[in-house]
Amino acid sequence: MRWIDVNNLEDIALGAAVLGTGGGGDPYIGKLMALHAIRTHGPVRLIEVDELEDEDLVVPAAMMGAPTVMIEKLPRGDEIVEAFKALEAYLGRSVKAVMCIEAGGLNSTTPFTVASQLGLPVIDGDGMGRAFPEIQMVTLTLHGISATPMTLADDKGNGALLFTINNYWTERFARSITIDMGGASMIALYPMTGAQAKKAVVRGTISLIERIGQGIRQARKEKRDPVEAVLGVAGGFRVFHGKILDVDRRTEGGFARGEATLAGIDEDRGRTLKIHFQNEHLVAICDGEVIVSVPDLITLLDVETGEPITTESMRYGLRTVVVGIPCANPWRTPEGLELVGPKYFGYDIEYLPVEERFGERA
Amino acid sequence: MRWIDVNNLEDIALGAAVLGTGGGGDPYIGKLMALHAIRTHGPVRLIEVDELEDEDLVVPAAMMGAPTVMIEKLPRGDEIVEAFKALEAYLGRSVKAVMCIEAGGLNSTTPFTVASQLGLPVIDGDGMGRAFPEIQMVTLTLHGISATPMTLADDKGNGALLFTINNYWTERFARSITIDMGGASMIALYPMTGAQAKKAVVRGTISLIERIGQGIRQARKEKRDPVEAVLGVAGGFRVFHGKILDVDRRTEGGFARGEATLAGIDEDRGRTLKIHFQNEHLVAICDGEVIVSVPDLITLLDVETGEPITTESMRYGLRTVVVGIPCANPWRTPEGLELVGPKYFGYDIEYLPVEERFGERA
Repeated sequence: MRWIDVNNLEDIALGAAVLGTGGGGDPYIGKLMALHAIRTHGPVRLIEVDELEDEDLVVPAAMMGAPTVMIEKLPRGDEIVEAFKALEAYLGRSVKAVMCIEAGGLNSTTPFTVASQLGLPVIDGDGMGRAFPEIQMVTLTLHGISATPMTLADDKGNGALLFTINNYWTERFARSITIDMGGASMIALYPMTGAQAKKAVVRGTISLIERIGQGIRQARKEKRDPVEAVLGVAGGFRVFHGKILDVDRRTEGGFARGEATLAGIDEDRGRTLKIHFQNEHLVAICDGEVIVSVPDLITLLDVETGEPITTESMRYGLRTVVVGIPCANPWRTPEGLELVGPKYFGYDIEYLPVEERFGERA
Repeated sequence: MRWIDVNNLEDIALGAAVLGTGGGGDPYIGKLMALHAIRTHGPVRLIEVDELEDEDLVVPAAMMGAPTVMIEKLPRGDEIVEAFKALEAYLGRSVKAVMCIEAGGLNSTTPFTVASQLGLPVIDGDGMGRAFPEIQMVTLTLHGISATPMTLADDKGNGALLFTINNYWTERFARSITIDMGGASMIALYPMTGAQAKKAVVRGTISLIERIGQGIRQARKEKRDPVEAVLGVAGGFRVFHGKILDVDRRTEGGFARGEATLAGIDEDRGRTLKIHFQNEHLVAICDGEVIVSVPDLITLLDVETGEPITTESMRYGLRTVVVGIPCANPWRTPEGLELVGPKYFGYDIEYLPVEERFGERA
């Protein structure tokens, strides 16, 4: 156990944007909410999943919706507490620990907002080891854990409690209500026991993103290459060096969808990279050839600052290094690839682990 | 109190189609479900609202969705029991009586399905005195009764519990989930006390539709005019005599929307009537002039049999008498017209009670 205070949150939010792979919601918004909660209610304990009792009730907290909407529709910060209270009331039990559903984007800090207000610890781990766009895309699904009962709350005071026969139906209902709620909602879902969490959680990912954030910050201070700092902590490879030429972005079905086009510079001069995204980056296609795909991570880093570039902050002229980072191991199983592999997203390609194309894993 | 058995249900379903004003779902489906339940679990008590204790918990039951979908997607009949049990579990109280949310269409018999299975009485009354397409369109809304907590259940085993800040939000969320559920769902909503029911319910409407059904049946047997029999019981006027020329019908936003065109015959020869509908008939326009509009009832009766013609059974060549029936009084207040008047449905016309255009109320 260690305490997470406002300083740790800065690094966590910065590193979260790297594992957010362009999406996951702008960590800045999640950070603002969590900072406000911690300044008001105090710091939060970060615990190892093994510190849980087997019968403890663990509940992940998240914000749902299109990142492009969330920027314009700031949550108050207490909706997520309402979602938790509604779930506790329904279950007739108290939550013992809060969890991150994804270690990427704003949902790496959302749980600290509710944990601080309720005086609960946050688990050092998550359900993805990155960010993914849909509710069923978590290691919890691979372990047969149901997303429901799940609660949703909006900024107006509306709420919903869902019960579904599988986690795809949860995604469907929750997505529709989230769209009705104005494009963003706060959610509490996948209630599970400590015993289940110990089996299913991707461990240590909050500490990992904190170290990534620290690495970027220190590299900037010491005028070292921040991209190298990211790869040194997170692993992965430089897969393209280029300038953003064009971004086609639309909010569709409750998601931010689109594609970005990058023109190569330096060693990649003359080559063109296209990145398709659905909240998160899904595939990177260089001159017609897929060079990285889900479930591996595709992240754009600003060449100068190492700042991760979200899909909504992509703009013409930005010079970036595109990095490919190996995903968590559960995603490389047949079941994992069925849930989050390129075919699920409509790309008829075989998944090739990024290190098999770009060399041995760092 | 009196008992409703399979014979009463035949008349109730027939009369319900008259107050269904073209929509409300095909009463045949609702009848089949209720008949099956009563044959299996026994007859149902029909009680006056005044027989309730003030603190009794009363819950309306209904099927939600586009009638066109319901025809192809027959419910199992026990989904509605699931919806009731989920609501009872949430409230921590037992339901004492079931209510009809609408006296028109299949939802006049849906409550008998659940009441028979749970051994509960049904109240002789409803929340509309007819059928309307949206959840908030009930006299309960006029009395400040919240539609939530509300439960939805589908045929696959999925369910949802909603909490909303007003009944318009309930309609929005429930409509989206119903569409996701395949276009139809079973719902339990507007939980209220006996005291609230006594103030808000449109009384006696189940007995009324039973008498309408009896009237049509006896007129057929005695070779009398069935249209006259309907008007004799329900009140109202013959507003057009015509043949269906064309029906433009589409499922849109979870509703059956469209318009029908009728060519006048006999006394209406040379005139054209257009009827716009959203599940239910909304306005009847004769040669460009609105002659009947919501909240008054517009119903098409088969000239020969008196059979009410639902929007999904309208077809070229059917000879019909269009009748206009005065709505329940609460709809004629400013608050009532705001909720269900022509302007709400997008028609920029002033409501004129049908009897002011067609003579004194029968």
